[in-house]
Amino acid sequence: MDAFKLREEDTVRVTEKNLRETAVNIFEKMGMPKEDCVLGADVLITADLRGVSSHGVSNILQRYVGFFKDSLINPKPHWKILRETPGIASIDCDGGLGIVMAPRAMEIAIQKARNVGVGMVTMQNGRHLSMASYHAMLALKYDMIGMCMTSTMPFMIPTFGAEPRLGTNPIAVAAPADKEAPFVYDAATTVVANNKITLARRSGVKLSPGWIADADGTPIMEEVPAPPPGVDRILPLGSTREMGSHKGYGLAGVVDVFSGILTGGGYGASNPKHVCNHCVVAYNIEAFMDTKQFKSTMDDWLRMLKSTKPAPGHDRVLYPGLPEAETEREYRAKGIPLHREVVDWLRKTCQEYHTQCYV
Amino acid sequence: MDAFKLREEDTVRVTEKNLRETAVNIFEKMGMPKEDCVLGADVLITADLRGVSSHGVSNILQRYVGFFKDSLINPKPHWKILRETPGIASIDCDGGLGIVMAPRAMEIAIQKARNVGVGMVTMQNGRHLSMASYHAMLALKYDMIGMCMTSTMPFMIPTFGAEPRLGTNPIAVAAPADKEAPFVYDAATTVVANNKITLARRSGVKLSPGWIADADGTPIMEEVPAPPPGVDRILPLGSTREMGSHKGYGLAGVVDVFSGILTGGGYGASNPKHVCNHCVVAYNIEAFMDTKQFKSTMDDWLRMLKSTKPAPGHDRVLYPGLPEAETEREYRAKGIPLHREVVDWLRKTCQEYHTQCYV
Repeated sequence: MDAFKLREEDTVRVTEKNLRETAVNIFEKMGMPKEDCVLGADVLITADLRGVSSHGVSNILQRYVGFFKDSLINPKPHWKILRETPGIASIDCDGGLGIVMAPRAMEIAIQKARNVGVGMVTMQNGRHLSMASYHAMLALKYDMIGMCMTSTMPFMIPTFGAEPRLGTNPIAVAAPADKEAPFVYDAATTVVANNKITLARRSGVKLSPGWIADADGTPIMEEVPAPPPGVDRILPLGSTREMGSHKGYGLAGVVDVFSGILTGGGYGASNPKHVCNHCVVAYNIEAFMDTKQFKSTMDDWLRMLKSTKPAPGHDRVLYPGLPEAETEREYRAKGIPLHREVVDWLRKTCQEYHTQCYV
Repeated sequence: MDAFKLREEDTVRVTEKNLRETAVNIFEKMGMPKEDCVLGADVLITADLRGVSSHGVSNILQRYVGFFKDSLINPKPHWKILRETPGIASIDCDGGLGIVMAPRAMEIAIQKARNVGVGMVTMQNGRHLSMASYHAMLALKYDMIGMCMTSTMPFMIPTFGAEPRLGTNPIAVAAPADKEAPFVYDAATTVVANNKITLARRSGVKLSPGWIADADGTPIMEEVPAPPPGVDRILPLGSTREMGSHKGYGLAGVVDVFSGILTGGGYGASNPKHVCNHCVVAYNIEAFMDTKQFKSTMDDWLRMLKSTKPAPGHDRVLYPGLPEAETEREYRAKGIPLHREVVDWLRKTCQEYHTQCYV
């Protein structure tokens, strides 16, 4: 995995504040209302702060700017609720960016969970929502569990198949603890995120065994160079049938049902590449049980996981959300490391759009 | 996988009706009310009919009888609702078997989903619920999507760890289609179900690479004999960190949160071995969108998956629930194949309890 880490000599440390203000400025130039610029920037900067640079300013903003240029994102969406009950809502995003639509949908879900214990909101005609766990984590400060799923264009080869049919279709779940960092799960249902393939292609690093399939669909179980751009044959989590790839494949299907078909906007493969449909859910802990007891049991459980005796060659056992919380603490103090190329792109883009660059 | 299939010469074909009546008789002798015996038998026979013999009469009933003998299951539970809102309920199962409690919980969830769009029920102080997808599938006839998760005793080694900390923690999701067999996902979050390890031990078949860890926690990436009973070191889905085992590990954690901690009954590792806590959810499709459109889009999607060009060595691409539906059709017509040892056990058990055996 280290092959994918930024080398210190290639990076510039940027403060959270400067990166945030730069992103806000760029979003403003895309025609987004100020409030949306601030919200959208918070999603991307949170991803960068948590070390999920694949979904932060460093990697995703450039793609968004390209989509705006091609009029594939609506900067001022007139989103509307299509159906609603006390527990659920179905939203038409009107082509608005997921990074501003999903937090709004989550607010609605949280309000419903406050009223009836659980709240779920589906979103059709959506666009990319960056790091799914951002939206799930919005539930934490209300002492709720949050979930977020998103259905994307096909990258994944089904078990026994030779063509991509399902997206990387990530699932994120965030649950609060008392003293410990919250449990924050956020994972693509493919064996590896598409972004890792792109990074490997760019840097010449070989792909690990079990990541992609051959042109005929056969899982490649040895190290191999990244395929050329546009060749999408990532294996499901599990890699081969013997190691459970049908489970990863089926799980991507679950995501396509909830955040694709159930939105009314269709499944990943039936939509243009820039469309991603979503689903968020909030679960009000106090409706189910005493919140204090829940959070203290979470502490016990997370401490049990952390205190697992490690296997040889490993210092410690982690849990989902722990390394991200540690990275966030470090980057808030020392700045966010950006690749020099990202800094150059930010400066160039701000110049092009005649706005202030703070990095 | 074929190594785990029953050999024709070892099996006896039994009609669904005869197996069902035999199971009902045995449950009655355990002290369960008649209505519960019928319901419980339906869960097990449905598992056998769908080819999931690991969770059917053929494998699980013997374990249940042992638990009843040891007074670890309450045959006449006085279950009660601890908390309730229009969208959720939290239930104390009073030690009742999951195969009779989970369908009741699902009925409550379905009623709530009818009223507010989504219904969720958590269950503490529960016992084994057999095939999780049985309970999820109960939603199908109401044109709803169903989900079921269950938190079990530890079998799974966390990524980088050397001790089991999480259960096999399965997730089941069932979604209706119009003409096609429904989408029915049902999978442990370990790379392989514990039952496969037991079967391999019994039959001398070697375990596949990536299934279990060494005594020190190192993933074993070659074929290896099954470890002795009581040694539980199954790897998470993904097998190794490079192939995404942290995703399978984290997903088992998600299940431990929803169907363990949120039930108020604690997580898998904090409970005695015979305790399994659960969570079921029903999603009312019509609340989100037009049900006809949903089901017809499901048909399109499932046909797309089925029509995926297969990789060399494979006839076709399946989707979750398709092979099970095909097996069910065959076994209803030709009878359910049971291993001779299972038939012997059923006869012996009926004799021991002075009740009629129909197999």
